[in-house]
Amino acid sequence: MSAALTRPICVLGLGLIGGSLLRRLSDTGHRTFGYNRSVATVDAAAADGYTASSDLVAVLREAAESDALIVLATPFTAATTMVEAIRDHAPSCLLTDVISVKEEVAYLIARLHPHGRYIGGHPMAGTAHSGWLATDPSLFDGAMWMVTTDDHTDADDWLAVAHLARAAGSYVVPAANDAHDRAAAAISHNPHLMAAVTATVGAGESDLALRLAAGSFRDGTRVAGTAPDLQRAMLEANSIALLNTLSTTIDRLTAARDALRDNGDVAAIIDDGHRARAKYEAIANAQPQAITGVTVGDDGWQEELRRQAHRGKVWVG
Amino acid sequence: MSAALTRPICVLGLGLIGGSLLRRLSDTGHRTFGYNRSVATVDAAAADGYTASSDLVAVLREAAESDALIVLATPFTAATTMVEAIRDHAPSCLLTDVISVKEEVAYLIARLHPHGRYIGGHPMAGTAHSGWLATDPSLFDGAMWMVTTDDHTDADDWLAVAHLARAAGSYVVPAANDAHDRAAAAISHNPHLMAAVTATVGAGESDLALRLAAGSFRDGTRVAGTAPDLQRAMLEANSIALLNTLSTTIDRLTAARDALRDNGDVAAIIDDGHRARAKYEAIANAQPQAITGVTVGDDGWQEELRRQAHRGKVWVG
Repeated sequence: MSAALTRPICVLGLGLIGGSLLRRLSDTGHRTFGYNRSVATVDAAAADGYTASSDLVAVLREAAESDALIVLATPFTAATTMVEAIRDHAPSCLLTDVISVKEEVAYLIARLHPHGRYIGGHPMAGTAHSGWLATDPSLFDGAMWMVTTDDHTDADDWLAVAHLARAAGSYVVPAANDAHDRAAAAISHNPHLMAAVTATVGAGESDLALRLAAGSFRDGTRVAGTAPDLQRAMLEANSIALLNTLSTTIDRLTAARDALRDNGDVAAIIDDGHRARAKYEAIANAQPQAITGVTVGDDGWQEELRRQAHRGKVWVG
Repeated sequence: MSAALTRPICVLGLGLIGGSLLRRLSDTGHRTFGYNRSVATVDAAAADGYTASSDLVAVLREAAESDALIVLATPFTAATTMVEAIRDHAPSCLLTDVISVKEEVAYLIARLHPHGRYIGGHPMAGTAHSGWLATDPSLFDGAMWMVTTDDHTDADDWLAVAHLARAAGSYVVPAANDAHDRAAAAISHNPHLMAAVTATVGAGESDLALRLAAGSFRDGTRVAGTAPDLQRAMLEANSIALLNTLSTTIDRLTAARDALRDNGDVAAIIDDGHRARAKYEAIANAQPQAITGVTVGDDGWQEELRRQAHRGKVWVG
């Protein structure tokens, strides 16, 4: 049990991310309780030995009474309902979320719950599966967990959310919301569109083509198998950043097509891609370097954390 | 040892595909010998207990004397040199290949070695790694191995190549060369371009983005790590089919961008992709159905094999 994570954890939404988090924290000795709209999910969680309820008001009252850290883990499309209920029934609780976009969530909370204490978060973990049955307490092990770090972020609240991420097994990546959303468009949301179009074009040939499909197709289209409503909620909530990324992608593919048509070569796109993949592998395969020389709460700590995170470093406490 | 594969196997090119095939067949009791231009590769193969040489003429003379089945396993860019040497030193040997395009190879052989006995082949197997050190005798287990099946294909020669694929552990997919090349563009070559552009766009953000990259980026860009010269040789040899596939891809992405910009939604691209991935999974996860009711050599056997393969069936002997 992490000494730094002392208050109870209330998880709203027990799908892949919320359910895995509830299991991880409960399994490691933290007091947890969860809400899910679906009674079937609540029953499945209870059958596995976890505290869960489909009574949102009761769950939020318990959160208020125990000064719990509330984790909003529903899809973005359900966030309005959740935030209004939090405002009405647990207004003084510290709130974080695990939704894959940050600016839209922050706007929504600022509008609906302007006096709330909110620190955004986003664990970079997932599979193509969803729902309680897909949950896994080790889902966050070694993952990167973005925690919103802007110039007005409160140090104590930030530390509470950062320790939540650490207790789940993740590294903390401090970032501003807009930088996060641009990054997420580039390395998560755009890949979802690429997987979708790759699958569609591949299946547009005969069954012969799908029969011949091997590793490049299997891996390149894996996330196209994610539930469409979850993909849509994620991508559409980040539409401005995604529009930029998608336009860049189209421009690059159009240049590649022109080169292939006019010169018969794909050198530029393949060489650029190989270099980019090598850069990614160098970052992904190395032990993450820790942010150093700054204490949370110091003057300008937020800017210094962001500066080091932009160079690929992580906060470990 | 497969009773149907009785002649020695001569493998030209001991990279990932050729080397893995040499190892598999040798390990299961077949007489094999190989050629590679690089002495280092030949030494590595010999140190692992395999018969290999960097003397192309000597290898081909041995093939001619032993009536070996020659497997051309170099990149397409080396094919001209290889086919001219085969014509000069082992003209009567049955020849197959494992190159990822079929029409260009067939044209090249028809031009350089018009009296040769050639049956094209393409095992749908690979990794992002290359060279002898990456070889794996189990690489072809359960893989789909396309074998050229046109109206003039000789039954005995076809069976020899089909049994080679079976001896390597693969299922045989009979197809015409043009159908194969369109399929390969859709399910292999286009995915390579998508992986490359996804990697490039992702790495175009700060190191923060690559630090946050998780499963969707890792899997979606995996094949961008393949050696660029191998990717170029593969894609550029299939440029006409790939141009069509790439243009379709660009059209679909442009429609997705317009929908996202004008309506804020990505429903069509995500729903289409999900349906396509589900169709692929249904085919990939089911035990392949065997082609039935036709004996190789019967009148019209080639058309019947192709017809059943177009519906996703495989030949198993």
